[in-house]
Amino acid sequence: MKPNNVSAEIIAVGSELLLGQIVNTNAAYISTKLSEIGIDLFRQSVVGDNPERLTVALKDALSKSDIVITSGGLGPTVDDITMAAIASTVSRPLILDEEIWKSIKDFFKKRRLKMPHYVSKQAHVLEGALAIKNPVGTAPGVIIEYGKKTIIALPGPPRELKPILEKSVIPYLRKKFGKRSIILTRSIRTAGLPESYVNKKIRKFLMMSGQVTAGIYSRPNEVDIKITAKAVDKKRATAKIKKVEKNILSILGKAVFGFDGDTLELIVGKELTKKHMTLSIAESCTGGLISSRITNISGSSKYLDRSIITYSDRSKIKELGVKKDLIARHGAVSRPVAVAMAKGIRGRSGSDVALAVTGIAGPSGGTEEKPVGLVYIALAKQGNVRCVERRYIGNRTDIKYQVSSAALELLRKELLK
Amino acid sequence: MKPNNVSAEIIAVGSELLLGQIVNTNAAYISTKLSEIGIDLFRQSVVGDNPERLTVALKDALSKSDIVITSGGLGPTVDDITMAAIASTVSRPLILDEEIWKSIKDFFKKRRLKMPHYVSKQAHVLEGALAIKNPVGTAPGVIIEYGKKTIIALPGPPRELKPILEKSVIPYLRKKFGKRSIILTRSIRTAGLPESYVNKKIRKFLMMSGQVTAGIYSRPNEVDIKITAKAVDKKRATAKIKKVEKNILSILGKAVFGFDGDTLELIVGKELTKKHMTLSIAESCTGGLISSRITNISGSSKYLDRSIITYSDRSKIKELGVKKDLIARHGAVSRPVAVAMAKGIRGRSGSDVALAVTGIAGPSGGTEEKPVGLVYIALAKQGNVRCVERRYIGNRTDIKYQVSSAALELLRKELLK
Repeated sequence: MKPNNVSAEIIAVGSELLLGQIVNTNAAYISTKLSEIGIDLFRQSVVGDNPERLTVALKDALSKSDIVITSGGLGPTVDDITMAAIASTVSRPLILDEEIWKSIKDFFKKRRLKMPHYVSKQAHVLEGALAIKNPVGTAPGVIIEYGKKTIIALPGPPRELKPILEKSVIPYLRKKFGKRSIILTRSIRTAGLPESYVNKKIRKFLMMSGQVTAGIYSRPNEVDIKITAKAVDKKRATAKIKKVEKNILSILGKAVFGFDGDTLELIVGKELTKKHMTLSIAESCTGGLISSRITNISGSSKYLDRSIITYSDRSKIKELGVKKDLIARHGAVSRPVAVAMAKGIRGRSGSDVALAVTGIAGPSGGTEEKPVGLVYIALAKQGNVRCVERRYIGNRTDIKYQVSSAALELLRKELLK
Repeated sequence: MKPNNVSAEIIAVGSELLLGQIVNTNAAYISTKLSEIGIDLFRQSVVGDNPERLTVALKDALSKSDIVITSGGLGPTVDDITMAAIASTVSRPLILDEEIWKSIKDFFKKRRLKMPHYVSKQAHVLEGALAIKNPVGTAPGVIIEYGKKTIIALPGPPRELKPILEKSVIPYLRKKFGKRSIILTRSIRTAGLPESYVNKKIRKFLMMSGQVTAGIYSRPNEVDIKITAKAVDKKRATAKIKKVEKNILSILGKAVFGFDGDTLELIVGKELTKKHMTLSIAESCTGGLISSRITNISGSSKYLDRSIITYSDRSKIKELGVKKDLIARHGAVSRPVAVAMAKGIRGRSGSDVALAVTGIAGPSGGTEEKPVGLVYIALAKQGNVRCVERRYIGNRTDIKYQVSSAALELLRKELLK
């Protein structure tokens, strides 16, 4: 492993990116690939289809980083300025690359398309540059060695950029810069804890710096702790992560529902499957979202028997057997009604467990006593029914999502008992 | 209109963005909003949670642009470095803002949460800065005038950034920089047409260049045509857009379901409300997604009576009255079963219209004859039942989404009759 840090900068080129008409997903992708071979990213930036600005950005990046990667602006039209801007930045001429030219002509021949004359522009690469054929388009990728710096130009469409980056650029960089330290990450996922609580509890891990760091990322009703480790190889990085992970798990306990790509619905599904249990759901304010999340998991038909979305008092009475006077006395959004809904759907379906929610998703329908965001979540299991009250803030879809997470979390905790 | 250009740069702060662990969607959003008030974007960039690098990026941006907007890094933890980096860049102290401090304390009180002491960090803003309350979180937005330059710091979570940008920052910039040439966009939204068909039909508008341009953006089962116009004022830009819009509408006809922020569920809801009609839904493979989309609309309790998600044969029989031998003869994924489900839920709920879907969301459960992605969608209205067969490609959640859009589109067309 070479001792010094290698740093890189990514410049995405395109007015449609700069104006926000499309989202720049390439930068995140390139970042991930670079971190896997231990290359430190200094900055990502986006510039429009403007040759002067791109030249300024290229010079600036070359003054700060060892590797500069551009994406986009390699097409055949006048808008496509990347290659000319690089040529001007490094003061080298563009010359026709015969092999690339042949592959472009083949591209059109194979697809029986008429080739516009201006496409030959894409066969012109910088003198001394390494051109990489594009397996799915006509714009080649280009690697240019410029003094001690490396400039890499990639086409903008993700499906063209990805194979060139993975098959040619990453191996090239790994070879040039040698075996370096790698960066590995691991997410610990929790539900039902406030971010401030998690922050306080694991504060000392957040203050770490150097080769292992931890950070908190929160979404509605779910907080992730992401551990990042740098080491010479995967084994050592994993060992560093495991040590911190073990400590955090012992602090947060059962609030941790999973890791990395795990979702509440996936974990709940695994537990139901393991225990051979079936589930039914009665939803009011979530309007089907809990069931939709449950059924995002392949195999959910094994445990989800049915759900009933009772969006009217009438349907709560008819479908779930909620007593009319119970609604009249306590209101549809109340603890007794949530409990009756859970009992009703469980009785009707014969499922092992049942969830029920009733609440006010807003923005209208709230009162002083029962504000928007108030919700009751009930869980019925054999003879027992539990019911919790929660209050959430946000717009209608935010509230729906938070309630659905809280319901799934209540079920997960019950299944762990 | 002031003659000189006003330029802006956006700096997103966060190692998780730089390392590609999350995609930077804020930059695209801010870009769009700036272009609407005629502010020219010079560059977007992303830097990690590194105070020195952020300071370098801030100084660099201030040397090139009139407005520098940061997103992220305003949280209460040690990772959150933006405010300190700005303070160091402009050499001004951070002082406690009493009003913001009070709003943060209220935030915790309302949620009945214990407030960690370090949250007070978020109430410290730059001397002379304008602090903007965060309606959904604790990090305030901040506007700082620095010589002729304006620095704006916004919180990173999109649901916190958006209201602050729209309600405070954009009006502030419009007032400061006056009336400029503006860029306006208009999206025409269609459902049920293949992208290649739309492309062919409106080809001549896509080839336009100059002050009005059109582009195609496609999502599963929905294709948008985005028209962009530049003009000295909103009236002229609108007139340019209207001309192109009118032509495209006459070509695409009833496939157009709405404009800009319109969704199928919103339009369907408006039609049901207008006609005083009620809806009930029987879902199988979509697992609650159609109902969840319908109930994302405020006021949907006026027309959605109930939905039943029958994820088992048993529940189709018991809840919807589907005949056991119908399922045995044709299979649960079949035209007769979809029709019986629609009739069943309509009969049970007494709603004016009813939707029913049955299909194979995959990835398992497909056969040669009935592959993954096959779906039947039925619509019942008074004596009539219509049923369509569709085939979709994608992963489980893609297929669910496409089926839900097709069902909503079928209902929309029926309501337009």
